[in-house]
Amino acid sequence: MAYMPGPSDGDQLSFRDAAPPIFDSTFQDQLELLLKWRRDVRRFRRDPIDEELIAHMLDLAQLSPSVGNSQPWRWVRVETPALRAKIRENFETCNAKALADFDESRARAYAKLKLEGLDAAPLQLAVFCDGGTAQGHGLGRQSMPEMLSYSVAGMLAILWLCARSQGLGMGWVSILDPVQVARTLDVPPSWQLVAYLCIGWPVEDHLDPELERHRWQERQDDSRRVIVK
Amino acid sequence: MAYMPGPSDGDQLSFRDAAPPIFDSTFQDQLELLLKWRRDVRRFRRDPIDEELIAHMLDLAQLSPSVGNSQPWRWVRVETPALRAKIRENFETCNAKALADFDESRARAYAKLKLEGLDAAPLQLAVFCDGGTAQGHGLGRQSMPEMLSYSVAGMLAILWLCARSQGLGMGWVSILDPVQVARTLDVPPSWQLVAYLCIGWPVEDHLDPELERHRWQERQDDSRRVIVK
Repeated sequence: MAYMPGPSDGDQLSFRDAAPPIFDSTFQDQLELLLKWRRDVRRFRRDPIDEELIAHMLDLAQLSPSVGNSQPWRWVRVETPALRAKIRENFETCNAKALADFDESRARAYAKLKLEGLDAAPLQLAVFCDGGTAQGHGLGRQSMPEMLSYSVAGMLAILWLCARSQGLGMGWVSILDPVQVARTLDVPPSWQLVAYLCIGWPVEDHLDPELERHRWQERQDDSRRVIVK
Repeated sequence: MAYMPGPSDGDQLSFRDAAPPIFDSTFQDQLELLLKWRRDVRRFRRDPIDEELIAHMLDLAQLSPSVGNSQPWRWVRVETPALRAKIRENFETCNAKALADFDESRARAYAKLKLEGLDAAPLQLAVFCDGGTAQGHGLGRQSMPEMLSYSVAGMLAILWLCARSQGLGMGWVSILDPVQVARTLDVPPSWQLVAYLCIGWPVEDHLDPELERHRWQERQDDSRRVIVK
């Protein structure tokens, strides 16, 4: 590293004067390990996460890119048992519907996947995209309005890595009716659900995706092919 | 680090036997620096990127999460001058339209931003989402079909960090008509443009976003607030 701040002076970096860091091969190798060990975690221990660590995660997420610097992500932390129960119900309805759409053997595999994590995860965050934000003045999203929700999705991928780097597991639940979640949490009408996150200390660590381990879906090469034109 | 592979044995990790890594505070601090110094880069040197490094970046991107392990990202590398010129034209048309929609002072600021990078960037990748993929068997996207394109957006955020960790700059161009780009590059009808990427060695490094530096849009606190329910 050409520049390496002390443990707490990260926030005092002067924007104008700081020298850009050079990330060395040790860091690059560890970043690769982080990518390999990030998992969609579904099994959590029930002990709470330190509030300072949660705040730190959110601060890191704030450094994510967004179209026109619009930062359209909005957070609802779901704590009360009644609301958590409603989210659980929403999941169960969508899950049952999804099961009905799959053939029997696939449905059995699916049922085994324990997709929820909703019962145990100490921290549950509904993350929305504010389609009505004026921040960013519309830059970069006139011909591609979907850039706003893509910015939220990108931020979530970064949050995932940050969580894993602290030993925390994160699961992204998408087997939900997003309109119903927005209604349950009574958010402004311009907010659209992007993710419902379960975060906590994982019961176990794995290098292979759960969906591979349970023979749902292996990684394929289609997504690695590059067409040159 | 509890486990640290040698420089080239990362790919030979046994999925079943490897011990999970513990990321220490040195790595966590450097990851935070990486987030801080990642930028949407628009000014590139014209020298090419080593092909091995490009392949390595794509390999790292493959480790990104995706709904149901669907890996819906698809890549077109745009090399021929004729096609690059068509993309440039597409950008100019959309850019002119965007300028017309802003008031005069904002339009001047906008024009100064040098949004393109399209002339100089040695590596240009159009990244699509394959809405027709069977991979993942539809898991996790029945009630939220947008999860497929969110997976591509998340992968792009991870690619951004990987590129920066190698000193490479990346710019995400969204001032484009996405349907026109798909037509120009003659991709299958199920492919939808998510990003047009300009990648290369940056002319300069900055800690503050270009849009802040040019007084387009500062970061705001709305996106950091958490509603607790």
